[in-house]
Amino acid sequence: MTSQTSESQSGTRRTVAVIGAGTIGLGWIALFLAHGLRVVVNSRRPEAERIVRDSLELSAPYLPGGPRDPGELAAGLTFEPDLERAVAGADVVQENAPENLELKQELFERIGKAAPAGALILSSTSTLNPDAMGERMPDGGRLVVGHPFNPPHVVPLVEVVAGQRTDPAAVEEAVAFYRSVSRHPVVLRKPILAFAANRLQSALLRESIHLVREGVVSVEELDDIVTHSIGLRWATVGPFLAFHLGGGTGGLRKWLNTLGAGLEQGWELLGRPRMDEETIASLIEQAEEAYGTSYEDLVRARDTRQTAVLAALEQARD
Amino acid sequence: MTSQTSESQSGTRRTVAVIGAGTIGLGWIALFLAHGLRVVVNSRRPEAERIVRDSLELSAPYLPGGPRDPGELAAGLTFEPDLERAVAGADVVQENAPENLELKQELFERIGKAAPAGALILSSTSTLNPDAMGERMPDGGRLVVGHPFNPPHVVPLVEVVAGQRTDPAAVEEAVAFYRSVSRHPVVLRKPILAFAANRLQSALLRESIHLVREGVVSVEELDDIVTHSIGLRWATVGPFLAFHLGGGTGGLRKWLNTLGAGLEQGWELLGRPRMDEETIASLIEQAEEAYGTSYEDLVRARDTRQTAVLAALEQARD
Repeated sequence: MTSQTSESQSGTRRTVAVIGAGTIGLGWIALFLAHGLRVVVNSRRPEAERIVRDSLELSAPYLPGGPRDPGELAAGLTFEPDLERAVAGADVVQENAPENLELKQELFERIGKAAPAGALILSSTSTLNPDAMGERMPDGGRLVVGHPFNPPHVVPLVEVVAGQRTDPAAVEEAVAFYRSVSRHPVVLRKPILAFAANRLQSALLRESIHLVREGVVSVEELDDIVTHSIGLRWATVGPFLAFHLGGGTGGLRKWLNTLGAGLEQGWELLGRPRMDEETIASLIEQAEEAYGTSYEDLVRARDTRQTAVLAALEQARD
Repeated sequence: MTSQTSESQSGTRRTVAVIGAGTIGLGWIALFLAHGLRVVVNSRRPEAERIVRDSLELSAPYLPGGPRDPGELAAGLTFEPDLERAVAGADVVQENAPENLELKQELFERIGKAAPAGALILSSTSTLNPDAMGERMPDGGRLVVGHPFNPPHVVPLVEVVAGQRTDPAAVEEAVAFYRSVSRHPVVLRKPILAFAANRLQSALLRESIHLVREGVVSVEELDDIVTHSIGLRWATVGPFLAFHLGGGTGGLRKWLNTLGAGLEQGWELLGRPRMDEETIASLIEQAEEAYGTSYEDLVRARDTRQTAVLAALEQARD
């Protein structure tokens, strides 16, 4: 495969098999339908059809390119509980099974045998290495990780991760495919456990839990601090550019030369909270008290604001 | 002071003495002028007047309530290099001197003696405790930390921090004052070194540097990942609400009960980078290559996007 054939192929990928209809699978389904793709949903849940249709009602107002009619979106849907039949006619497979290596190895072995030879095989895994997942797959080199953020139809990042066995052409294909559905793929230069964005998230969550556990702020106050400072900032510029500008005209050079050594000392003072029963119970209690509203109302509020932020950023870039 | 007199007083606070005209002081000056306050700038830099006027040109398009004319803003300015004279007629003092405890103790001793008895005394410190800073101040109980984010005229958060000696009425006054200039004050329940937002920022930066140092991503790719995922997310909902919704209808309860124990294991795997010369040099080199454009152009691009995000969030809330 050359880069040219990759590009032309991605334009002709019309049918996506989505394996698993949990939170992430449901987001992908909405996103792919919104881009006019045919979606074959493979789920063993007997109520999958109802769940997918309900979920489309919830996501239809917040799709890239603007709100859609959920009924029209659903016209592109097929349900196929048999895995081999679900992938048999797929140009792309996006797998969203639970994070269990054995289970994924078995899935990809079967997908590898049943999917067309040219199909792009993608996994939403947030932790597993493509080499390991594709160990029993006939053509494991075509398996690429495409790890989205929640929900995949709203948040644009997809972390694209290859293993040592992965065919570089498959990585290019994955990037082209995700761009064709208006996502923002970033290819990691090497695999790392939990990839980049979730590691960053985990680091921030650790200190967030520390601050709540120490009684410095409540769960709601912590969220309030983040949304009114670093969240806004990092929606606009990443941490390095933020500090590059925080250093004034001297840039990151001045900032690191002044504070670089102090950074390491500061890190030693960060919290190392234990997730004991008391901590977990207190976090849950505070979150339920602060965010007691219905799940669907909160999701709508989140996605209304998220969509507005994305539109504003796009406009400001022009 | 009762809560009622506090509120009425904050509306009549018309003159602010801004001590120090570095990056943070300059942002405060623009913000206070935009709200029609008189601003007395106290700086020992001989070129302070030019620096402040140049900075107003740069910040005038990005003020809360919309763009302003920098010349009209400057009409509210006075320059007074003598500290005692600068604070003598102030209703509010916002101090932005370097992070040096001795220096601040001396400053607040002098400010405490020279400022009117009812003046609100605020420090932008990002690390120091109000009790320590106000040790030599005649009425140290009225000193409150009001720690902003950079730049203070764009990012709404102000962390309000009291010491053990601090008068609760002064804290209330500080909150009312920051609200009157359209900031979003959050009062910490107890002081902690480096306060909340910078600790969170530091935790994320640590893992960011680890990922770059390990060669997983470049400086620019790391920024790209953050702005297209967690940044967008945290501009919209804080980390706890994000996970509360990430857990589906089961909320944070389901998420923590499923993953809570695993969280702690994951934290043990986070990076512990050393800020050695090689690391610092590589970060600087990558940042300068990626963000080689002029400081002013980058600041304008940042603040254009930041202002757009803020406006979008405000609209989406209504």
